[in-house]
Parts: sequence; structure tokens; C-alpha cells
Amino acid sequence: MIHLILGGARSGKSRHAETLAKASNKKVIYIATAQAFDDEMHVRISHHQNSRPKHWQTLETPIKLAETLTKWGDDDSVLLVDCLTLWLSNLLLAGDDVFESESQAFLDVLATYQGELILVSNETGLGVVPMGELSRRFVDESGFLHQKLAQIADEVVFCVAGLPMMLKSAK
Amino acid sequence: MIHLILGGARSGKSRHAETLAKASNKKVIYIATAQAFDDEMHVRISHHQNSRPKHWQTLETPIKLAETLTKWGDDDSVLLVDCLTLWLSNLLLAGDDVFESESQAFLDVLATYQGELILVSNETGLGVVPMGELSRRFVDESGFLHQKLAQIADEVVFCVAGLPMMLKSAK
Amino acid sequence: MIHLILGGARSGKSRHAETLAKASNKKVIYIATAQAFDDEMHVRISHHQNSRPKHWQTLETPIKLAETLTKWGDDDSVLLVDCLTLWLSNLLLAGDDVFESESQAFLDVLATYQGELILVSNETGLGVVPMGELSRRFVDESGFLHQKLAQIADEVVFCVAGLPMMLKSAK
Repeated sequence: MIHLILGGARSGKSRHAETLAKASNKKVIYIATAQAFDDEMHVRISHHQNSRPKHWQTLETPIKLAETLTKWGDDDSVLLVDCLTLWLSNLLLAGDDVFESESQAFLDVLATYQGELILVSNETGLGVVPMGELSRRFVDESGFLHQKLAQIADEVVFCVAGLPMMLKSAK
Repeated sequence: MIHLILGGARSGKSRHAETLAKASNKKVIYIATAQAFDDEMHVRISHHQNSRPKHWQTLETPIKLAETLTKWGDDDSVLLVDCLTLWLSNLLLAGDDVFESESQAFLDVLATYQGELILVSNETGLGVVPMGELSRRFVDESGFLHQKLAQIADEVVFCVAGLPMMLKSAK
Repeated sequence: MIHLILGGARSGKSRHAETLAKASNKKVIYIATAQAFDDEMHVRISHHQNSRPKHWQTLETPIKLAETLTKWGDDDSVLLVDCLTLWLSNLLLAGDDVFESESQAFLDVLATYQGELILVSNETGLGVVPMGELSRRFVDESGFLHQKLAQIADEVVFCVAGLPMMLKSAK
């Protein structure tokens, strides 16, 4: 069962994902993709960490998401990836080769994934076209990725103000 | 009964709120949070004023929203606040002390509010992360506020192209 | 029957529109509004062209949309306009006179349009208020246009991650 949780900044995506993870009654493995390069980012990461249960295991995976899912996914655990937006940024900053191979490896793992998996990602394409070429590239790749994930996922939710709208639901 | 009307720029939020206010068959008190600092803002304010019925009472409340709601809210009136986005901007520009005290006072008033209240606010978190630190702060605080308001509100609506999507509805 | 397909960048709008066009079992006339001023735009246009069936007729209409709809619309064809966002940008760049006359002419044609028409447009008002005055103008006019079109259209859809949310449906 793959859940995709989309939403804007501070839309309650992470909280919704964490509620789903708790409701699964499985061991929760939290996969953090954030890397703290500056103080502001450090504060954002701490804010998220403090809101999570202390007994959840945390794995830091800025790049090699396919590898982490393959290694840690099993029937007794739910894996929560928060968030794909930062992972995708990390891939694009690492160069086209890394982006191509790691994003394809991730989609390949998902195609046959049997465990419980919750993916959180930011919707960023609903503002004006951004000025920078890298930002436009990011918006494009993020949108393409979301379309592919929405095809694979069993449930897709779009959060606004902490309220989930179901876009696709498992039968 | 508290209504929260969210939506993007020019998404028909204000018109939807005004339709709700008219349908209440109560005296409408319109609470304007905008302050005209330049010509462009002046034009935007005039545009909104001209679209409203002339017999509605207008109160200008750029900052002290809790005070206005406490003073004017009663069983015979519907209060329409348009919009929280500008009010929040005004608070953040007034400094952290004002922001903390006024936003908390507003939430405290809402927690026990008995009258008819319509709140309009812009959804701004669905584009790319903005460049300026103040803009990022605004997007964060706006998102946090919307999540808290959505918990308190009886009805939450998300407008796109003037069409409301019901995110939370009163029983 | 007029369909309005809204959504963010790379939200699957065009694909959804193309699926609708194919399902109509009519001759598809594709109305492209894009003009390639630089290499990046050229790549974006090619990307879209390659994803479309080769037997669709393509008309390039950066400005005179009303004229094209009047000339080509008939009972045997479905006209697919992709996208109104670029058309609106073209109008605004061409000056206020062109913008006023062409946007009004377009709405006039729609008011009595009898054929099958699919309109694709970007939702751009859900990010922070953009810095440039032209960008703010664009967001405003785009939002106003969407509201008017949503009134006229028989079906309005909002796409997120390739998944359509029905905002207004034909009886």
C-alpha cells in the first residue's frame, strides 16, 4: 500500500502522514531527506523532529532513496518519506546523472513495492512561473514525478489547511 | 458558525464570502484589513469596495482583529473579515511581539465565538519557496494559521475559478 | 459543450485534455498559443508536440483566438486550446488595447458557442504575490478570466498530479 500526500508549504502534509503512520500499528521508520546547510534549515528540521514520537527510528537519506526502501521495507514496518521535494532538490543539485539514475531506481522499487509506504511531497506548481531556470526545472521535474507517483500509488491525498482531499482512493 | 474561505489570488473568495453574508439575512459588518500604502493597493481596495452593497457597515481593522470581533459580534450580525492575509502581513510587519499577542488573541476569541463569522484568506503556499526570508516566514505563518483556523471553523471552503470546494462541512 | 481544464505546471492538464479530445471521437483541431522566443520555450513546445497524435491538425494562434474559434468550430470537430495562460500573456504583452478587445471577443464567442471545445489554462494564483507588476497584473487577469470561463463552461476540472478533481459538471 503506497500513500502519496501532496500539499503546499505548511499545509499539514507531514502531520497527516504521521497520523497515517500511527494508525498503521506497525513499526514506523521515518526517512528524512533534509540536509541542513544553514541555520534556517536547521530550525525547520528541528521543528519537524520535535513533533515526532521519540521511539520512531529515523534514517537520513538525502539521495539514495531506492536503496533505503529496498533495505528497510518489510511487512512489519511502515516507511514514511518526508519529503520527496527535498530529495528531488538534492538529486538535481547533484547533477543530471545522479538525478536520472536515482529517480529511475526509486520508481523501479515502487513498481513492485509490497510494504506500507507513505510519501510526502510539496505541490509547487500553482504559483507564477519562477524566475530562475533551476526553479523552473525543479517545478517541471516535481510535476512529472508527482504524475508518475500518482499512477503507482494506491491512495493520493491533497492537503489544504490540514484538511485532506482524497484524489485517488484504494478500493 | 465560523466559515473559512480559502483560495488563490482572484479565485472568487471575496465574492463567495459576500454571497454567504447576503444569504445569512443578518446585518453585515465588513471588516477590512487592507491599508493603502501605494497607488496599486488603492486601486485594489477601491475595486473591492465598489463590488459591495452600499448599506454594509465597514470597519477598518488592520491589526486589532480580536478587539473588533469582541466589540461588534452579536446574534443579529454577520461579520465578514476580508482578508486574513493582509492582517497577517500587517502583524508580521509590526514585529514579533504584536504578531504573537494579536494572533493569539484572535484565536482565543474564535475558540468561544458564538456569532456568525466569515473569514477570507489567501492560500499562498502552493508555489515555489519564495526568495525572501520575510516571504518564507509569511508563507509559514499563513499555513500554520490556516491549519489552526480549519480546526476551529465549522465550514472550510477552497475556491478555484470562483467555484468552491467544500473541505469541511458543518453537520 | 465547453470544458475548462485548470491545474498547475506539469499537473497533467494537457494530457487530461488530450484524453478528452480522443474520447470525443471527433476530428481534433489543436490550437497552440505558444510562441517560441528562446531555446527553453522551443524545447517545451517540442515536448508537447511529440506527445500528440500526428493526424491532429495544429493551428498556431498566439492572439486571435476568437477568430480561430469562429472559423474552425463546427459540429464534426473538437477544438483543443492549449493553453490560455500563454495566450493571455501574449495579449498583455501586446498592450491594453489588444488585451481588452481580444479577451472580450473570446468571451463573446464562447457565450454562444455550440461545438465541442476544450480549454486548458494554468492556475498561477496559489503562490506568494509575485514581485513584478506585470506578474501581478497577469495573476489578476488570469484569475478574473478563469472565474468568467468557469461560469460559461459546462465542465470545470482542477488537475493535481494528473488526477482531475471535478469542480463543475454538466448535468
